[in-house]
This record gives sequence, structure tokens and C-alpha cells, in this order.
Amino acid sequence: MAVGLSAPEQLLPVKGIEIATTAAGVRYGDREDMVLMTIAEGSSASAVFTQNKVCAAPVTLARANLLTATPRALLINAGNANAATGQQGMDNALECCSLLADQLGVEASEVLPFSTGVIGEQLPMATMANGIRQLSGRCGENDWLAAANAIMTTDTVAKGVSEQVMINGHPVTITGIAKGSGMICPNMATLLAYVATDAGLEQTLLEEMLRRATAASFNRITVDSDTSTNDALVLVATARSELPQISNHTEAEADLFYQALERVMVRLATAIVRDAEGATKFIKISVNNGQSENDCQSVAYSIAHSPLVKTALFASDPNWGRLLMAIGKAPVAELDIGRLSVSVNGLGLIEEGQPADSYTEQAGQIEFEKSEISIEIDLGAGDAAYHVWTSDLSHDYVSINADYRS
Amino acid sequence: MAVGLSAPEQLLPVKGIEIATTAAGVRYGDREDMVLMTIAEGSSASAVFTQNKVCAAPVTLARANLLTATPRALLINAGNANAATGQQGMDNALECCSLLADQLGVEASEVLPFSTGVIGEQLPMATMANGIRQLSGRCGENDWLAAANAIMTTDTVAKGVSEQVMINGHPVTITGIAKGSGMICPNMATLLAYVATDAGLEQTLLEEMLRRATAASFNRITVDSDTSTNDALVLVATARSELPQISNHTEAEADLFYQALERVMVRLATAIVRDAEGATKFIKISVNNGQSENDCQSVAYSIAHSPLVKTALFASDPNWGRLLMAIGKAPVAELDIGRLSVSVNGLGLIEEGQPADSYTEQAGQIEFEKSEISIEIDLGAGDAAYHVWTSDLSHDYVSINADYRS
Repeated sequence: MAVGLSAPEQLLPVKGIEIATTAAGVRYGDREDMVLMTIAEGSSASAVFTQNKVCAAPVTLARANLLTATPRALLINAGNANAATGQQGMDNALECCSLLADQLGVEASEVLPFSTGVIGEQLPMATMANGIRQLSGRCGENDWLAAANAIMTTDTVAKGVSEQVMINGHPVTITGIAKGSGMICPNMATLLAYVATDAGLEQTLLEEMLRRATAASFNRITVDSDTSTNDALVLVATARSELPQISNHTEAEADLFYQALERVMVRLATAIVRDAEGATKFIKISVNNGQSENDCQSVAYSIAHSPLVKTALFASDPNWGRLLMAIGKAPVAELDIGRLSVSVNGLGLIEEGQPADSYTEQAGQIEFEKSEISIEIDLGAGDAAYHVWTSDLSHDYVSINADYRS
Repeated sequence: MAVGLSAPEQLLPVKGIEIATTAAGVRYGDREDMVLMTIAEGSSASAVFTQNKVCAAPVTLARANLLTATPRALLINAGNANAATGQQGMDNALECCSLLADQLGVEASEVLPFSTGVIGEQLPMATMANGIRQLSGRCGENDWLAAANAIMTTDTVAKGVSEQVMINGHPVTITGIAKGSGMICPNMATLLAYVATDAGLEQTLLEEMLRRATAASFNRITVDSDTSTNDALVLVATARSELPQISNHTEAEADLFYQALERVMVRLATAIVRDAEGATKFIKISVNNGQSENDCQSVAYSIAHSPLVKTALFASDPNWGRLLMAIGKAPVAELDIGRLSVSVNGLGLIEEGQPADSYTEQAGQIEFEKSEISIEIDLGAGDAAYHVWTSDLSHDYVSINADYRS
């Protein structure tokens, strides 16, 4: 069950984006599992993809297509990742793009394909072709929530965020959806996420903002340290709002827009952690006053990836010894234990390397029993900082991944 | 339950080493939990310790004492790690060494202290003092198996190995014991392990052999990627066999001895993985034909640390997609999927990046259901190789670590 997360009640449409969904039957039978998003002409778009060297055919193709054209359509299926499928998998991804391009009257290279689900099986092409025909007949719909539902695999809750900001008196909308629950440790990349805005954004600025917001959101989450073969995040700006195009020459507008974009992406990324496989806790790990951001990041991930910390969190056990173990094993050049402090939800556990005088096991227990836990580390070595979000390691994580073929 | 491992029936005594054990009641009440090993004068000794920067007081003290003198006694307790205990913890470790030194008539700096168990609690000093008195009264015993039992924490099986080799017509004995079951990913170091031989070894050669054999054994195992605060491995050579001292000038003898030492240490290290917390499988991961040993090591640990691979192994699921995912996320500069091959227990899964023609799910299932699994990766990029041993991730791992305060 997701921690402090329910499906959004509604998501705001974005002018210039049309959405269609269908139950093609790729794997799940009785639910929607394919999505088409069309993008109006004149939009700008950018994407980041998994850094896993074993990447799926649709990732390779989407990356290549993005280099040649601004996309006019995104085609997404759940239930089959089309990963580790060799030349046949690439041929199938190309065929899907061609089929859809013919229906929409665009170039095949203007279609970006995305797949998520089981690794190592070929796409069921008759099913895909049928789904593509159904989707193209439904263009004109605009139901982001249906799309958020259709792209789920082991997710228990649909994930979507909308925000409207006024920039220079013009309302600008940003809406995003995401899926992902396990195999989550995006490495300069992410799972499947689609964010669109009706603002106009100059292409290089859009790319820079996507990189920056990804670093602040999806690249700070981990469920199980495993990086998927299919991660992809797309940002589209349709330029359909009344606001003139945002560029590096409109710094104030760019700032306002970026802040809203980052908020949307952080909410989407943390939604994935809240719905992590088997999660019973939502945990933020903040490492402050390090010598470098890199040191802080190493310590944060060392804690977030430690099975012993994660099982203690599942048990609501204020086991600060395991926190110290995980801090100590982080690949940091220097660590002065005598300057190290650790607190949880503001309660001091360790001060200058030793148990805080005021700390009691009972007080610790109260904080660790909460479903939202903030762990704050002070390295006492500088002024750099980093934070990540993660989940606990529960029996359900083992069950889900021992029973489910992903 | 340990995989393919039972307690040794007997362990060979090593001339020059005397052992005593006692049930001091540090934590477990009704079982032996303290060990004294005395080392005859004229022995040589060396040790490696955890690289975790949060290391326990006894580790710091043992490291310092080793710099000033050849140890005459090892004092070990289970149940309390004396880690993250600040100045009080260091004072207590010093006090234990002094008490024992007085009883034995040696210098306090000739005693090495070792502790394992719960992190963050002070040693119960009255209990420790009482235990030390009992131990020193029992000197002269020589029961390695009792010692192997007394140092256990979450271990389910006592771990010990003896080997006798003939070198130049002289029998030489090597006996070692180890404990450890979780928080296992030694980093140039290990858990608690004690290996002794009656051979004489020149000090620098002994140190070099310890480093080399550790790299071939304890530094190739991982249960959960977590590096303990208390890891320590000690090698003692008592020079009590008939064989003249082994040195760099006796290369043939040194080679014979080293091979036996490495065999003993590999058996001890793999015993720890076989008894890993919650383990139902014993897994060897071999990565061959990489560009560098470092690349091969990265790929091997990427698989060994992947929760998704480990849960699939627990489920006996021939999920080679997860293996590819874990290979692909390894921090390797180049990886040509088209040259990648993967087999399990000799059964080809992936050949040149694609499912092997001869592979069937049924054949895969048969291999993955075995309790001993060898995963072989061929990177097709060079001639370097590396291998590690690991365990699966089961419900029992979560239970043990959600219930047990380590």
C-alpha cells in the first residue's frame, strides 16, 4: 500500500496535447495498457533515458528519433518492456512507429515508442497493431488520469501531478504522469514519466531545465538500487499558452517556470517512492555540511541502499547503530566521527559521534513508528548538502519480486 | 538454514595456540560467548580489519596494539560489538586488555580485543571481568570447535576449517574459524576470523600472504552489501612445526603453504555465505573475459547486490532479464551487448546478447531450483576475470533483520 499517496482526483489538460488510451491486451487482459499522446506542431520536447547499458529497443529508437525530429506522438505500452529482444525487438519497435505514423499522417521518426513490463519477451505484434488502430481512432480525448492508469505495472496507485502558475499575468499549466514501483534507482534518467506544459520554451532552455529538474527529482530516488532497462522521462512544451516563448532572455519568467517544473517533478518522483514495492515507510535522507555534494550523495545512498537500515526501518526499530554502519561504509575520503550528528524527525540521536544525552529509546521508537521519516545527517565538515528519498525493505518487497516476473 | 554446510566434526589443534571458552553471559545467557586464544612466544601474526570508517573501539585498539608488539593473546566476546560507544567504549576495551594481561603475565599491548554483536551499547564490564578470570584459569585447553561456537551471533552453524599439508616432508597444520551471517560485504577486511598455523613464517611474507589470501577469499563474499563496523581477520604462525621458517628465500615451500592457506580461507569465507541470514541458495558469480579485473568485479558485485536478482534466485525463477539489467547498470566504461554471454551451471542462457537458441524455460528452471548455482558471465572484451560468492534474498532475511537488533 502506498505511503501517504492516493491517485490524483483530476489532472489539468495541456493545450496542444491529446491523449488516447485503450485495453489492447498486451499482458493484463482486463485493463487499459496502451497510451497515445499526440503533440501539436511547433512544440519543443526533450527526454532523458536510462543509463543502463542493457537498454531496451524502444529506448534506443526513441533516443535516435529525438535526434532527427521534434516528436509528434508518444506511443506507450505496459506489460512488455521489449528489452533484451535483439534485432527482432528493434524491428518490432520500428514497425509500431510506422503503423502509428501512417494512421496519424506524420513521419515514423516523429513517433517515440516506450515500453514497460517484462524483460526478454517479444512484443505481441498483432495485439500492438490492433491497439495502435484503436488509439489513433480516439485522438482528441485528453484524459491524463486514464493515461496514468494505463502505464502502470506493479504500481498500486496512478501517479500524476498538475500545477498552474501565473507568469506575467498568463496562466501556464504543467501536467505530468509517471509509473514505477520497483527496479528504481534512476541514473541520470528515470522510469516512465511524461510532463507537458502549454508554455513555449526555447529548445536549449527546455533541455537545460529538464536536466536540472531531473537531478533534483528522479535522480534522487531509490527503491532497491536497481536501474531499469527502460527508464524514460519526456518533457514537452506546446507553446499554446498566451505567454510568449520563455528563453534565456526572459530570466524572471524562466525562473518562475523552472520552480513550478521542479515542484511537479519532485512530486512525481516521490510518488514513485511512496508506492515502492512493499513500502510501509516514506523516508527522506538529508546529508548536510559535507565537504562536497559528492560526499553527501555517497552517504545518502549508502544509507538508502543498506538492506540492514531498510529492514530496521520496516521494523520501526530505532537502530541507529545500523545508520552509523551505513554512514561509515560510504566511499568518502575523510569522516570525522567526532563531528558527526544524526537526528530523526528532528530528534537528536547522535551528537558529535556519541548517543545524544537527551536521547531515549522510547523517544526514538515514537519517531521510527511514523510512516514518514526524515533522517538528517550532519557531517560537520563543510557546507555541501544532498538529499534522497527512499522506502523500507519489507516482506512484501520479497513476495512481489519472488512472485512477479519483471 | 545453511546451504550445504554443517559444523566441522573436528578441528586440528595448532601447536603454540591454546584456547579457552566460557559462558560469561554477555548477552545470550545459556551459551558460551567469550574466547581466549593464547599465542606462544616467537610466533608471527598479522591482521586485516574493516574499512568502515565507523569502526568499533576494539578494532581501533587491536590495530594500534599490532603496531607495537606481536600479540600473545586474543580476547573475543560475542553479543556486544562495543561499536559507536565513544571514549567509554575505548576505556572498556583497554580495561579488558589490562585485566587479561595481568592474569597472563604479559603486556596489555600484547592483547588484541575483538567484539561482535549489538552496536551502540557499552560492554557489561562486571560480566567481562568475570569472564576474563574464568578464561585465564582454563588456559591449556585447545578446543577450536568450542571457540567457533562461542563467537557466533546470528550464525546457525559453527564455521571452522583445518588442513594439514606436507612441506619438505614436515606436516604443517592450518586451522581457522570464522563467524558472520549478515552485515557481510568485507571491504579489504572481514568479519571475525582467526587462522593459525604451526609453520614459521617470516613477518613480511606472512603479511603479504594474508593480504593475498584475503583478496581471494573474504573480500569476494557479500550477503547484503553492508560492511560491518567490527570485521577482523587474524593470521598467526607459531613456528612450532618441524619445518624451518618459511620466507621469501624458500619459494617452493612458500607456494605450497600459500595454496593451503588460500584453500582454508576460501572455505571459511564461503562458509559464511552458505550460512548467510535467510539464505536458501549458495551462488558463485564468475565474470570472465573482461577488459580489466576491475570491470569484472563491478559486474560481479552489481549482480550480487541486486535485490531483484536476489529475490528471483530465492524464487528459483530463471529470470535472466534481471541478470542483464544488473550487468547493464554496472559502472563499466564499455559494454558490448552483442558479445555478452551468460550461462548458469553450464547451461547457456544468453549468447552474443540474445537468448541462446537451445535455451528453454524448463531447462532454466531445473538449474535455478538447485541450491548451488554458478552464474557465468562472458563479457567478450578481454582476458580479465573475477568471481564473488553470494546468497539470495529471502523472507527470512527480512524477518531476521527486522526482529534482531544488530
